[in-house]
Amino acid sequence: MSCAKGLAGVVAGQTKISSTDNQRLVYAGYPIEELAQKKFEEVVFLLWNTRLPEPAELITFSHDLVNKMVLPAETIRLLSYIAREPQHPMSILRTTTSLLGTTNDVEHDEPPKILAKILTAIAAIVRIRDDKPLIDFDPALGMADNFLYMLTGKKPTAELSVMFNTVMILHADHEFNASTFTARVVASTFSDYYSCLTAAVCALKGPLHGGANERVFEMLSDIVENKTAPLVFISEQIQAKRKIMGFGHRVYKHGDPRAFILKDIAEALAEKTNNQVYFKVQQQLAAYMLKHKQLHPNVDYYTALIYHCLGLKKETFTMIFAACRTAGWLAHVMEQREQKCLIRPNSEYVGPKIQHCVTQQSR
Amino acid sequence: MSCAKGLAGVVAGQTKISSTDNQRLVYAGYPIEELAQKKFEEVVFLLWNTRLPEPAELITFSHDLVNKMVLPAETIRLLSYIAREPQHPMSILRTTTSLLGTTNDVEHDEPPKILAKILTAIAAIVRIRDDKPLIDFDPALGMADNFLYMLTGKKPTAELSVMFNTVMILHADHEFNASTFTARVVASTFSDYYSCLTAAVCALKGPLHGGANERVFEMLSDIVENKTAPLVFISEQIQAKRKIMGFGHRVYKHGDPRAFILKDIAEALAEKTNNQVYFKVQQQLAAYMLKHKQLHPNVDYYTALIYHCLGLKKETFTMIFAACRTAGWLAHVMEQREQKCLIRPNSEYVGPKIQHCVTQQSR
Ligand SMILES: CC(C)(COP(=O)(O)OP(=O)(O)OC[C@H]1O[C@@H](n2cnc3c(N)ncnc32)[C@H](O)[C@@H]1OP(=O)(O)O)[C@@H](O)C(=O)NCCC(=O)NCCS
Ligand SMILES: CC(C)(COP(=O)(O)OP(=O)(O)OC[C@H]1O[C@@H](n2cnc3c(N)ncnc32)[C@H](O)[C@@H]1OP(=O)(O)O)[C@@H](O)C(=O)NCCC(=O)NCCS
Repeated sequence: MSCAKGLAGVVAGQTKISSTDNQRLVYAGYPIEELAQKKFEEVVFLLWNTRLPEPAELITFSHDLVNKMVLPAETIRLLSYIAREPQHPMSILRTTTSLLGTTNDVEHDEPPKILAKILTAIAAIVRIRDDKPLIDFDPALGMADNFLYMLTGKKPTAELSVMFNTVMILHADHEFNASTFTARVVASTFSDYYSCLTAAVCALKGPLHGGANERVFEMLSDIVENKTAPLVFISEQIQAKRKIMGFGHRVYKHGDPRAFILKDIAEALAEKTNNQVYFKVQQQLAAYMLKHKQLHPNVDYYTALIYHCLGLKKETFTMIFAACRTAGWLAHVMEQREQKCLIRPNSEYVGPKIQHCVTQQSR
Repeated sequence: MSCAKGLAGVVAGQTKISSTDNQRLVYAGYPIEELAQKKFEEVVFLLWNTRLPEPAELITFSHDLVNKMVLPAETIRLLSYIAREPQHPMSILRTTTSLLGTTNDVEHDEPPKILAKILTAIAAIVRIRDDKPLIDFDPALGMADNFLYMLTGKKPTAELSVMFNTVMILHADHEFNASTFTARVVASTFSDYYSCLTAAVCALKGPLHGGANERVFEMLSDIVENKTAPLVFISEQIQAKRKIMGFGHRVYKHGDPRAFILKDIAEALAEKTNNQVYFKVQQQLAAYMLKHKQLHPNVDYYTALIYHCLGLKKETFTMIFAACRTAGWLAHVMEQREQKCLIRPNSEYVGPKIQHCVTQQSR
């Protein structure tokens, strides 16, 4: 094949939105470590405009986003059926994202409204599945705080608010990852925003991509519930040549810069919520993986524990990832539209040589 | 940028399913011209197994496919709401494809059942939007005939049956076109079948891809209804540097092999259904485009008239394309799964240079 497997190392397009050059994650020039303490809306503005907002702009932008965090009554009515389906919440989110694009008037939905609706819909899916009443946004809170409030029913403390904004910011974009690339291919046919986002959700769902965070927590709770010694568990898995979820990365070979920040948040939250046992297991697994496999934790590793400490169920973890990444997906879809060029690669044919049908007709 | 724009000419992977090498369309080694007279199921078998079925295998395979052309009662109930939404039928199909993946027991849905359900769902969307009763499959008919019957309520004559099987076969696959490539990227994360197909529908919807057939008929009916002289119309469009839908192709530069076959079917059907006026316009436009732009009609050009002659409304044309292409999408998803390799390209960062946040905190 004339190209690397899985397009690894192949440049599929240009972007101004983010970069992982030199093993650092940078949004429009700003290192992620500096952005981590900002407000989520500020980073959304950055991704969409390639510059940070002025203070007054940020107030207007944030106010506008939060006030759009409502769903049409018709969507809520349909969601009350769809969200209860027995399938995985990411399948429900796939249907819901598409459905948001078929109510009245959506032809003119723009990114702010679309992002706001998706966060609200994700919170609604979680609440409906838990048989809990839906919660209206509070205009006094920012977008990340509202999202957490609408998910859990509790307004975050100042400390938790800072942490959750950081989590959302760190997940907001990551240049041409598989789901973002999917969104860009769809955008390149001039399909609509909801089609681009629905397709991105389809890709994020896969266990090699966003689906990893749920599987990390599955592993941790297996270890804790069965009282397995972490080192026995991991050495057995590695001996059996199994992949350990939450480790390794296509781009980062010396550690995922997001994981360093998320680790501290996981530790603090674990302590606050009496979940230290999980964090201790994570430390032991990570030390083993580094020593024996030279592999570092990725973004999904500590996030799994953070979401658990927030009171979320493991099946919902990848939806939270989707909520944050929607900001980046929308940035890339806008950029791809400007480029006005169909993404349509070639394939290398390796099937049977030219052959002919026996003349006998089949019908 | 180190890569061609839109991945043009870049080999993104290997396939045994189909090829457009040397400007010919070949499915697993068989030229499309030879396959065009077969039964649709025979070609589906070919795409999924890289070989034609034995006569006995074909009977079993076809019987199995047709008998799966039913929807769960719960899906029909939800469809009766969703299909009536005011948005484009392709948006409805996007939601519906996703929804098919959230009913009970879908974890074990395999390609035959998935293909059968999607054809049935597309027919149901068309019927519900037209306020017509749904039609059950007839076990005596093949898959293509049943699809046409369930769409229109009329069992096709022998002659129409041959034509419609050909149309479905010619649309069934086309190596790494944008929607198929989308399905493969999603499959590469190990996401499920319904996610892969939903994402493919998202891409096909775009006017640069499957959305073109609807726009071809829009142009033809504009010309016919307004009694515009075709040559006046087209020379004005070309002078205004507008793209004429249904012409040109990324791969075929000397004519789309499918269009040659579809032209004869369009002519025959136009005569049978008293739609010759459209065909005459098409001939004049095509002659002009060849002479002045050296551009040939593509697969969507004559298909538009064929679907009109079958009594379908133009907004539904791209859904019929999706129905046929689902066979190919599924073939490619199965093949991609076997390759076990995440599709994740690189991007070239062209945004602002590294910059730093002013220390003043935003929150
Ligand atoms: C993310 C991932 C797909 C990157 O894959 P990649 O760039 O294709 O890297 P490879 O899979 O080729 O990994 C290179 C080597 O490290 C090993 N490796 C990578 N990730 C591993 C893991 N999580 N556990 C155990 N071994 C791993 C591979 O087996 C391979 O070993 P080998 O050279 O002996 O065959 C891969 O690390 C992975 O599957 N991780 C687990 C899933 C996950 O956490 N995904 C979320 C990513 S944010
Ligand atoms: C299919 C299509 C996207 C292929 O695009 P591509 O490989 O990128 O080819 P380009 O758009 O670069 O076309 C090459 C030249 O032919 C012209 N051209 C291509 N298709 C044209 C059309 N349908 N009408 C008028 N001019 C056309 C282009 O303007 C360009 O002219 P230029 O060199 O003077 O700039 C393009 O032909 C198109 O948009 N066709 C109309 C939509 C359609 O029918 N799509 C269904 C495809 S099956």
